[in-house]
Amino acid sequence: MQVFDAIWINVNLATMTDNGQPYGAVTNAALAIKDGRIAWLGPKAELPETDLLSTPLYDGKGQWLLPGFIDCHTHLVYAGSRANEFEMRLNGATYQQIAEAGGGIKSTVAATRAASHEELFVLSKQRLNALLSQGVTTVEIKSGYGLDVETEQKILEVAAELDRTHPVDIQKTFLGAHALPVEYAGRPDEYMQLVVNEMLPQLHQLGLVDAVDVFCEGIGFSVAQSRLLFEKAKALALPVKAHAEQLSHLGGASLVAEFSGLSADHIEYLQEEDVLAMKTAGTVAVVLPGAFYFLRETKLPPVELLRQHQVPMAISTDLNPGTSPFCHLPLMLNMACTLFRFTPEEALAGVTRHAATALGMTDRGTLTVGHKADFGLYQISQPAELCYQLGVNSLTQLVKGGREVNLRGLG
Amino acid sequence: MQVFDAIWINVNLATMTDNGQPYGAVTNAALAIKDGRIAWLGPKAELPETDLLSTPLYDGKGQWLLPGFIDCHTHLVYAGSRANEFEMRLNGATYQQIAEAGGGIKSTVAATRAASHEELFVLSKQRLNALLSQGVTTVEIKSGYGLDVETEQKILEVAAELDRTHPVDIQKTFLGAHALPVEYAGRPDEYMQLVVNEMLPQLHQLGLVDAVDVFCEGIGFSVAQSRLLFEKAKALALPVKAHAEQLSHLGGASLVAEFSGLSADHIEYLQEEDVLAMKTAGTVAVVLPGAFYFLRETKLPPVELLRQHQVPMAISTDLNPGTSPFCHLPLMLNMACTLFRFTPEEALAGVTRHAATALGMTDRGTLTVGHKADFGLYQISQPAELCYQLGVNSLTQLVKGGREVNLRGLG
Ligand SMILES: [Zn+2]
Ligand SMILES: [Zn+2]
Repeated sequence: MQVFDAIWINVNLATMTDNGQPYGAVTNAALAIKDGRIAWLGPKAELPETDLLSTPLYDGKGQWLLPGFIDCHTHLVYAGSRANEFEMRLNGATYQQIAEAGGGIKSTVAATRAASHEELFVLSKQRLNALLSQGVTTVEIKSGYGLDVETEQKILEVAAELDRTHPVDIQKTFLGAHALPVEYAGRPDEYMQLVVNEMLPQLHQLGLVDAVDVFCEGIGFSVAQSRLLFEKAKALALPVKAHAEQLSHLGGASLVAEFSGLSADHIEYLQEEDVLAMKTAGTVAVVLPGAFYFLRETKLPPVELLRQHQVPMAISTDLNPGTSPFCHLPLMLNMACTLFRFTPEEALAGVTRHAATALGMTDRGTLTVGHKADFGLYQISQPAELCYQLGVNSLTQLVKGGREVNLRGLG
Repeated sequence: MQVFDAIWINVNLATMTDNGQPYGAVTNAALAIKDGRIAWLGPKAELPETDLLSTPLYDGKGQWLLPGFIDCHTHLVYAGSRANEFEMRLNGATYQQIAEAGGGIKSTVAATRAASHEELFVLSKQRLNALLSQGVTTVEIKSGYGLDVETEQKILEVAAELDRTHPVDIQKTFLGAHALPVEYAGRPDEYMQLVVNEMLPQLHQLGLVDAVDVFCEGIGFSVAQSRLLFEKAKALALPVKAHAEQLSHLGGASLVAEFSGLSADHIEYLQEEDVLAMKTAGTVAVVLPGAFYFLRETKLPPVELLRQHQVPMAISTDLNPGTSPFCHLPLMLNMACTLFRFTPEEALAGVTRHAATALGMTDRGTLTVGHKADFGLYQISQPAELCYQLGVNSLTQLVKGGREVNLRGLG
């Protein structure tokens, strides 16, 4: 007789595995957990013998159960609002005028530097709660609004505290090379030296860095500068990723692949040679439809090419105050389908299975025995519903590491 | 000494009136209500003498207070899901194949005909609760998924029950001329006769019709057919509106203006002559960015022309399962700004003041003494925030007709 900590019956599982069914579906199923992990799943009729009287039993009543969602690219820890800038632009101000009024990333850096750890924590927890209420159980958080050692540290410490105190797992990504701080205007190489030789090693030593990211773009850092950063990351045995090919084809994605990196993100201008390199390296293509929409971009990421070469595609909010102020993963599912023509199955794989790969996490992203018991129960007729409808929240139960999250308490 | 039922202090009011300030703002203000209406508002320092000890007092702590939002164009009462159709289309199916599989509006009509009053009520209440949680206090609901007398009646009865039992005001719009039911295939004139001579008078006699709408489009009803309907509406003293100029320029908007109608909705293909006619008639231009986005339209509504001629512009969800499955008014605020280049002030006027005009309601839509005490309190730094950020719900209190809505109880 097997012993479980809890059992769900009368559920339809979208396991997101390759079991030959769309969404890896197992209908009329059961799922059992033990010690915070998935211990059994399959057709309900095959549930092993167990002491049903002493095991908490949830009747899903035909609802769908999916892996906890993974938001694999966020800049969630920041202070300040850029609504004023949004308003100025819509009232006809030029980027130049906005910059002169102190707008742009500079304003977020200034506000984030000025904010206390506690203030940042409160703001960030609110955002994280919004994501949780949407079924998200794992979130990547990047630094990059400090651009000096102490603020980059503060951001990653907030992320670490969120990880410790909140029912969500956080991957902490160091993005000191997000933009050039005003103190280093015209001296990008010097700033990159600071990032590579001081920031990264110090923050890594404090245990604050799980991965290293760079904004590799004409308006950001060059491939040569990014390479210096990646070499240091490699020396520290840290995985790399990049904001790449968003506004032009610079070569960042292939650079990530060269370092067997986790993901190349944005990738509107990705070319076939990059796709091939990513395929070989196992690098995930992360698409960020929120930024595409908000910036009114017209160049679409090469989805068909990525499909052809079977490069895994993940989807994320890119939550940030400048170019994707959307703390809303379901909206990204809809936008990936509507704007990028993802199928709903591809979209849901993009926030589960492939998002896990994008974070180098092998213990989640699908409903599989041994995986973390991270999942959501949804009152929907079919998984595609999650990519289609927005506004009515169909999530009725969220389980993180085997424990039920109090959705009412997320405010 | 004045007597109030409740007072809010330390609030910033976005009155949405023409008081010379953006958003009609009054900062460091107070607002008092009596008998479900706004009884006083102005700078806090000028609050009239009153018995503060026996009056409920709310400290807004610097939050912003805005009129209750008005969603002036929804098809909220329906059964069935069109997620399968969404998925088929993304998997490459043609519209023809989807129609053959029973998709399209036909499937919603079939599901709505089959649903009981109680089932429809439960589904609709869930959607209404989602809108309330976003600060919406007035909603227009159209029939149009029955296309026979009894189901059109059922839909409007559900809307009436929602109006009676729920802390939201509903305007019930008869849209029997939404599409041609299968029973009348090839016989649109005969169906319009049914609509004009039987459906509308019967439902009107039951007190179920506040306004009359028509889908005036190449794939819907012609201007001549629409005119017959409007003449009947006029005879019954019912205001008219139309789904017009969405996919082509047919003349529906000018027809609405000719009948001094409430609004012309969608209006991507609106021309200057229509704008002038609407201006003269006082007809509101309702834009529906959700449908524009979901259908991947490229023809933008003539916002600049409407601005020039000072035709009031409203914004709505167009909530419906086929072309705008978005029960999400804040998303429409963002889309109106991002896609249609509304300023945030125009967007917020479009879900308050001008949306009230679009419903012919003169007792709401701005914070004005004598208006219904319908308002929301938001934890935001500035009103533009409501058009910019999505996901973190900044609504902290919602008041409908002077009574606080239990936001926690909205599910
Ligand atoms: Zn980013
Ligand atoms: Zn409509």
